[in-house]
Amino acid sequence: MSPLVTCRSHAMNDPIPDFDEACAARAARYLDTLTKPPGSLGRLEALAVSLAGITGEDFPTVTPPGVVVFAADHGVAAEGVSAFPPSVTAQMVANFVTGGAAINVFARRLGARLEVVDVGVAGELPPAGIVHDKVRRATGNLRREDAMSRDEAEAAIAVGRRATERALAADCRCLIVGEMGIANTTASSAMLAVLSGVPVADLVGEGTGVTQAALVHKRDVIEAALVARAADPDAPLDVLAKLGGLEIAAMVGAYLEAAAKRMPALVDGFIATVAALVACRLEPRVRSCLIFGHRSREPGHAHALAALSADPLLDLDLCLGEGSGAALAFPLLEAATAMLAEMATFEGAGVNDGGTGRHHDPV
Amino acid sequence: MSPLVTCRSHAMNDPIPDFDEACAARAARYLDTLTKPPGSLGRLEALAVSLAGITGEDFPTVTPPGVVVFAADHGVAAEGVSAFPPSVTAQMVANFVTGGAAINVFARRLGARLEVVDVGVAGELPPAGIVHDKVRRATGNLRREDAMSRDEAEAAIAVGRRATERALAADCRCLIVGEMGIANTTASSAMLAVLSGVPVADLVGEGTGVTQAALVHKRDVIEAALVARAADPDAPLDVLAKLGGLEIAAMVGAYLEAAAKRMPALVDGFIATVAALVACRLEPRVRSCLIFGHRSREPGHAHALAALSADPLLDLDLCLGEGSGAALAFPLLEAATAMLAEMATFEGAGVNDGGTGRHHDPV
Repeated sequence: MSPLVTCRSHAMNDPIPDFDEACAARAARYLDTLTKPPGSLGRLEALAVSLAGITGEDFPTVTPPGVVVFAADHGVAAEGVSAFPPSVTAQMVANFVTGGAAINVFARRLGARLEVVDVGVAGELPPAGIVHDKVRRATGNLRREDAMSRDEAEAAIAVGRRATERALAADCRCLIVGEMGIANTTASSAMLAVLSGVPVADLVGEGTGVTQAALVHKRDVIEAALVARAADPDAPLDVLAKLGGLEIAAMVGAYLEAAAKRMPALVDGFIATVAALVACRLEPRVRSCLIFGHRSREPGHAHALAALSADPLLDLDLCLGEGSGAALAFPLLEAATAMLAEMATFEGAGVNDGGTGRHHDPV
Repeated sequence: MSPLVTCRSHAMNDPIPDFDEACAARAARYLDTLTKPPGSLGRLEALAVSLAGITGEDFPTVTPPGVVVFAADHGVAAEGVSAFPPSVTAQMVANFVTGGAAINVFARRLGARLEVVDVGVAGELPPAGIVHDKVRRATGNLRREDAMSRDEAEAAIAVGRRATERALAADCRCLIVGEMGIANTTASSAMLAVLSGVPVADLVGEGTGVTQAALVHKRDVIEAALVARAADPDAPLDVLAKLGGLEIAAMVGAYLEAAAKRMPALVDGFIATVAALVACRLEPRVRSCLIFGHRSREPGHAHALAALSADPLLDLDLCLGEGSGAALAFPLLEAATAMLAEMATFEGAGVNDGGTGRHHDPV
């Protein structure tokens, strides 16, 4: 990756601020004054501390969340790597528009703003209810050619940045990014194999409903693509362009922009985590603004999480995508912020603290 | 345990209905018609199936939930087994009344009905905002005497049954039971040691803030109590009366009554799970109406869960009690029911199902 490309990708955008360690330390100290044994709310306390550090607010808020679902098709679907035909991408986008998909149901429960963005769907889409920001109709078949050009990858990243900007403009305080794209576990597995060095056989799982026989074929397709594309593991944009997807590139952009704006981003499953890994390789400071929603059933997810030293909040054997697992985790973020904002202190409530307060070193 | 006591405890109450297998099977089949790959919502789908079977409703509802926190003191606190003085029980009840405790914060987020019930607090309590249903002021010190008589245990169970009845009368559709009682991990560990046969050393953890030195003392107290009380492992009421707590007995009653009324009960952490174990030993059909909210940091919890073959929804390193972990899990139950009620079918949304529908054997 040339310095020129790095400059073009990122210098035009806001720099990513540091995690606010002082604010996080204040939140940690304050938590120990609340009417509960110190640390007894476990990971919920760690979550509250993280949200304070990400936002730089002593009493952070995450409501309302903004859910953005990026949709695009994958040329590699022609290799028969998915149990579903590529036409399902457009059909599911229509389902998002009419509100019948899982992410619609979960987003409604959260009072979330939900936006569906077409970054590269091949089929016909409803004219209304979608942000039309198509970069091209589907990627190239990565088994035969680069998925997209470097310029197209950059353009798709910009699509994602714009989506985050719209969520911010609509006063959203937390970003949940989802995806829809038949065959996108194939693209994500190929990217992760290059970025992590983990063998393809360890990464490839059932995707969405593939049988054991089809699994071997999926692995073969990915392994052949890795040889043919020869993406540079040290150049995340090269990996994204040659092996990725338009919706995956948009997710990368969405995370980059969220980090630049101190907006916590709640990461979904396998594909979202691979996109988050690309974003962190491009800009390591993205990492501290990410909260991982759940551990997916897809075998590659554990490897993607390990590459980011991430330990998700939920482990519910999900493998749907769409942002669904992140949406299911969101109430924990709300609970963490409510704990900070609403619980009484030992002193205020007249409760004996048992002398058990932890001692914090100054940070 | 004499047959007469069994009769007095249970025959006067409604019989516990069977889990509705037919309804659960219908829910499972219906889930596979919804616009997602079959099974891709993992444990959320299993949860929806369970809720259908518990309630006997094809489209179950769990909202609003009813949270009941039972409070009582423990004579064994005099042995110095807790980091907090016994006066904290009454102080925390006052905190529940003014809305400053963790369970208040989480219950508000859920739109839950919250009721605080005094079953046996020793100290003075605010007159208003509490259901006064005291059986006695604190249990006896189980190191020196039986915690309570069989009649008192039965009376405390009846307190719990009445609380469930009030929640039902207020149209609550799911029960969350919490507790407050300084030293109640000691009582629960003693009960579990008898009921499970697991050595005390494997069960006893930090409780709420005890140091390593105090741990050894806590174990010694429990082991001495086990010898002195000689509770019958095959007689759950004997174990409850000799080693338990008034609030723990009330929790047992709350679960029994929830099961009798087909009301799903969301179980909190260690103490709640020990109470659930007693309820299931008294009436095995209680088990299928229980949903386990979280896996606590308290070491005994894993053993209590294993005794019930339970795998909780969350694992967030919590150890607070009050019903807090169950309340944090509740949004998953809401999401499961919303998935059933609101998602579009493949046919209705015009989405190609890829021929991946699972085949269910008739149940």
